[in-house]
Amino acid sequence: METVSENVCFDGVQGVYTHRSEVCACDMTFGLYLPPQAKSGPVPVLWYLSGLTCTHENAMTKSAAQGFAADAGLALVFPDTSPRGADVADDDAYDLGKGAGFYVNATQDPWTPHFRMWDYVSQELPELLGKEFAVDLDRQAITGHSMGGHGALTIAMAHPNRFASVSAFAPIANPSQSDWGRKQLSAYLGDDDAAWAKHDATRQMEAVGFDGPILIDQGGSDQFLDLLKPEALAHAMTTRRQNSVFRMQKGYDHSYFFVSTFIPDHIAFHADALGL
Amino acid sequence: METVSENVCFDGVQGVYTHRSEVCACDMTFGLYLPPQAKSGPVPVLWYLSGLTCTHENAMTKSAAQGFAADAGLALVFPDTSPRGADVADDDAYDLGKGAGFYVNATQDPWTPHFRMWDYVSQELPELLGKEFAVDLDRQAITGHSMGGHGALTIAMAHPNRFASVSAFAPIANPSQSDWGRKQLSAYLGDDDAAWAKHDATRQMEAVGFDGPILIDQGGSDQFLDLLKPEALAHAMTTRRQNSVFRMQKGYDHSYFFVSTFIPDHIAFHADALGL
Repeated sequence: METVSENVCFDGVQGVYTHRSEVCACDMTFGLYLPPQAKSGPVPVLWYLSGLTCTHENAMTKSAAQGFAADAGLALVFPDTSPRGADVADDDAYDLGKGAGFYVNATQDPWTPHFRMWDYVSQELPELLGKEFAVDLDRQAITGHSMGGHGALTIAMAHPNRFASVSAFAPIANPSQSDWGRKQLSAYLGDDDAAWAKHDATRQMEAVGFDGPILIDQGGSDQFLDLLKPEALAHAMTTRRQNSVFRMQKGYDHSYFFVSTFIPDHIAFHADALGL
Repeated sequence: METVSENVCFDGVQGVYTHRSEVCACDMTFGLYLPPQAKSGPVPVLWYLSGLTCTHENAMTKSAAQGFAADAGLALVFPDTSPRGADVADDDAYDLGKGAGFYVNATQDPWTPHFRMWDYVSQELPELLGKEFAVDLDRQAITGHSMGGHGALTIAMAHPNRFASVSAFAPIANPSQSDWGRKQLSAYLGDDDAAWAKHDATRQMEAVGFDGPILIDQGGSDQFLDLLKPEALAHAMTTRRQNSVFRMQKGYDHSYFFVSTFIPDHIAFHADALGL
């Protein structure tokens, strides 16, 4: 693992690191914010999964999360959204290939062997963090924006007892029924609908739910509402009687101005679930 | 004036607008954050002047200022850092020409007639804001980062009674004595040292000072300390007995991670000076 940069921020350190990923068979870059409390010992971790076209950097620079993480004593992890490199398959569209890994393990060519973001985010990267940094993997929570909200919800539901809480900003909530989903799941996983189920937050909510609290924020003026399908997830959460809060935020769109507005609430929500 | 974008943010609006600038003889773009209080009437204004290579956008997306401005009821203005357009002179160096207007009115070719950022920021843009938006120009304060800190300090000292307070993050504090300054002042203003004086915060502090409080934050691990020369300004402020606080922040560098860490303090400082 190599250090790309480290900047002091709210008395902690915002770092960027690269490492060889065995899972993705390429070099991967991630951001990690360690709050000042990490100087004294391992701190709980909040994962932030980003959306289409993003790298590790967008949320790290635009979400304004570090100050609130420092107050709470939470580390923030900002993974990339896909494998990277000259030999990694790509597509001309912004919503497939690089920057659009969709948090799945691809089984279809040309996306194998690199596109394995599910295993990367849920196995390899946590192991690396636990080995290299003062983080407490017994206390984790997860959030994300758009495609990253999809990733956060599906990974949380598939790993019972790992995350104390999950939240999402404008998640892709029902990808099996959306052009943000059908195209990508078909490309990466093939046309076997059964393989899609665990990568659809609404269907996972119907099937298994989540064993902790959920917070969802959705902008009421989001330009992608028809693709996100928040109503499907709200229906599924309510039908399951899932411990959850779904907030439709009037006037807000899909941008980081929306994310930064509500990130304080999300960090407070996760800090509470983690007993901070 | 045309609206480029408007995003709801902390219940206010982060807008981006373009307009024909008579002063700079080109189209100019600026960001304006109006807090929710502006829905009820004019609000005080905090100017944020940006540094070398920046546009209106950097601080708007990376400084994390909007939430604190919303709490205080302050508008934030994010001007560009130079004239723009195909017919505007430029230089291959990052620190001269576009993105590097240095908040002066150029008197030398090829920088005339476009490079008139002093008049743009201190005359034309405030007039436009007063005409188009719910801002109260009787209650203004000003801040900036690096080259923008230089601009904030020099403009504030040259306009007594206009700004209730001035602050700066890692300002270029003594450009007459720095490679961040001599090159630019020479190019834009010629070699007449007397013309440089009002564009050097340290010299202006020695000559006239400021009629309100000043807050300066400087990162102790800033990679540009030798160019910024904060010790000259600290010496001048102390010698004048200027109402001021100068904070050397151990470990912090020149990045927006430094700015975002201390922007809450700066907004609170200006809000206090503005009687909010």
